[in-house]
Amino acid sequence: MSIERTEIADLGEFGLIERLASKFSLQHKSSRLGIGDDAAIVSPPASHELLVSTDMLMEGVHFDLSYVPLRHLGYKAMAVNISDIAAMNAHVSQVVVSLAMSNRFSVEAIEELYEGMKLACDTYGIDLVGGDTSNSRQGLVISVTAIGFATPEKIVRRSGAQPGDLLCVSGDLGAAYLGLQILEREKQVFMQTPDVQPDLTDFEYVVGRQLKPEPRIDMVERFEKLGIMPSAMIDISDGLASEVLHICKKSNCGAVVFEDHLPIHKDTYDTAEKLNMSVITAVLNGGEDYELLFTIPQKDYQKIELDPFIQIIGHIDKPDKGASVRMRSGQFIDMKAQGWNHF
Amino acid sequence: MSIERTEIADLGEFGLIERLASKFSLQHKSSRLGIGDDAAIVSPPASHELLVSTDMLMEGVHFDLSYVPLRHLGYKAMAVNISDIAAMNAHVSQVVVSLAMSNRFSVEAIEELYEGMKLACDTYGIDLVGGDTSNSRQGLVISVTAIGFATPEKIVRRSGAQPGDLLCVSGDLGAAYLGLQILEREKQVFMQTPDVQPDLTDFEYVVGRQLKPEPRIDMVERFEKLGIMPSAMIDISDGLASEVLHICKKSNCGAVVFEDHLPIHKDTYDTAEKLNMSVITAVLNGGEDYELLFTIPQKDYQKIELDPFIQIIGHIDKPDKGASVRMRSGQFIDMKAQGWNHF
Repeated sequence: MSIERTEIADLGEFGLIERLASKFSLQHKSSRLGIGDDAAIVSPPASHELLVSTDMLMEGVHFDLSYVPLRHLGYKAMAVNISDIAAMNAHVSQVVVSLAMSNRFSVEAIEELYEGMKLACDTYGIDLVGGDTSNSRQGLVISVTAIGFATPEKIVRRSGAQPGDLLCVSGDLGAAYLGLQILEREKQVFMQTPDVQPDLTDFEYVVGRQLKPEPRIDMVERFEKLGIMPSAMIDISDGLASEVLHICKKSNCGAVVFEDHLPIHKDTYDTAEKLNMSVITAVLNGGEDYELLFTIPQKDYQKIELDPFIQIIGHIDKPDKGASVRMRSGQFIDMKAQGWNHF
Repeated sequence: MSIERTEIADLGEFGLIERLASKFSLQHKSSRLGIGDDAAIVSPPASHELLVSTDMLMEGVHFDLSYVPLRHLGYKAMAVNISDIAAMNAHVSQVVVSLAMSNRFSVEAIEELYEGMKLACDTYGIDLVGGDTSNSRQGLVISVTAIGFATPEKIVRRSGAQPGDLLCVSGDLGAAYLGLQILEREKQVFMQTPDVQPDLTDFEYVVGRQLKPEPRIDMVERFEKLGIMPSAMIDISDGLASEVLHICKKSNCGAVVFEDHLPIHKDTYDTAEKLNMSVITAVLNGGEDYELLFTIPQKDYQKIELDPFIQIIGHIDKPDKGASVRMRSGQFIDMKAQGWNHF
């Protein structure tokens, strides 16, 4: 972070907005009017449906600024919304961002946050077209609403899974949660003995998965290339169990996941062991992996069988079967949804 | 508020969302998929542009729950966004709402808030199609993103005003700010002498303007009926001065407002007098009136001359003239933007 410190009060609301807005330009031809009016104007492409998703990140609940760099936070605020639209099998084209912050943040700190957002916008070809900034008496709050367009026949909901469909994920699971545990542990160590520098060498992968999640928008092209359409899809933000249950509920079906088919990175195993935690719990209930969970009709098995980016973890069953994990031991355990229950 | 108290923790995230979502149904034929997937799906009407606006309300900054009923707050959170889209000369058709709250709120309290939102949705024909709920370690946060559709030729920006255009407002100004002062005064009295019940009889109008602003969406139809198109428009959320300056900046022009043409309600005058405050300051810098400020080409003067809902307050001038108010005394005072500067 820069050592310069400009107070937000020195710029005022409109000065701050102008300074932040000057870094963003419009790329999409569908973006007709960006920041600076009562509303943004976007031209929907002909015969496309509009997809809208929104997420709010709260300091102290979703992030801890003692170990999350502001630039990463800005990137992640975008990533989680891009991931939601990817889960509909579509791309984000525009976002609006609302931000509330207190005077403990300098203008330079807020610029760091927007740098991260801009990096995500540039990486994923997105225009920031509007937003709102305000004061917060408490922590930092970031609210992002993402919009995308897709032709109706391309859109994938949570509700189309059928018994017999293959249950698949786009990448490995459990790392983001264990990365968070490592960051929390290092924070505790630092608070007790501030001269000890954290050594994260062994944990780069899991910490990276926590701090810089990449939405799997590449899968939208992959499905196209493979000539397949998922029958249902959701992104994995709350943990695998919760997402499998969402698909089961919306598609009125059951599901079986096989423990020995779960894609888990070697570093995730090693970290779980070092922390003396259950890696399967991290996968099922950890969350924040932002991989895609989707179902594929069995007839398309050969199209995905050898694909290195798709892992078949189980299959869809009849509704009365419920949702369970078949463990290596042969035992079945029921899946339970977590969501947040911080209250 | 109901005397029943259900803890949010008893329902959990998904239970709470389900309970809130069950009160809302989809009315618009453009709303294809509402709450319950990774994103909402909306079908843009052919040849229409999409308008997007977002606003975030923070407890302790934008509202004080010691005198703002939750139902009114929910209504207002919608109203401010509807007002933004009205300022583009369009209707809101869908909204997404993010909410963060702590466990000091019961499920019944959150339902009160959503009752207010639902009332606004029903009144203005809007579908709530998605959102996000999360925990807050601090105050209540409400973020609303509104979307609307309009044909390109109907959309009014801030940037089209020309020298000679008439500067107009849709209703009276200054009341909402003075209503807030009354509520703040009563709060102080109550804190010092809790047995004294507040008597707001004389202040119903100004307090109502503060607590239950009505977006001037009726003006969209009015312009149509009168056969006029504003050359520029903005809603009055930060005070008249700030909004006139926005139009001047975006349209590259100056403006003159006449003090004796400012529409001020009798109760607003009376309240200002009782509080020993300047009514002109309330109008220029008070904000939250949510009236529309717009410019009309001089050729259309006769079409609006006798309209009881349109008040001509001044005119657009050349850019080098700046923006000023001509006082009754004949003196000119420069307009200054306020925005928020709570830092």
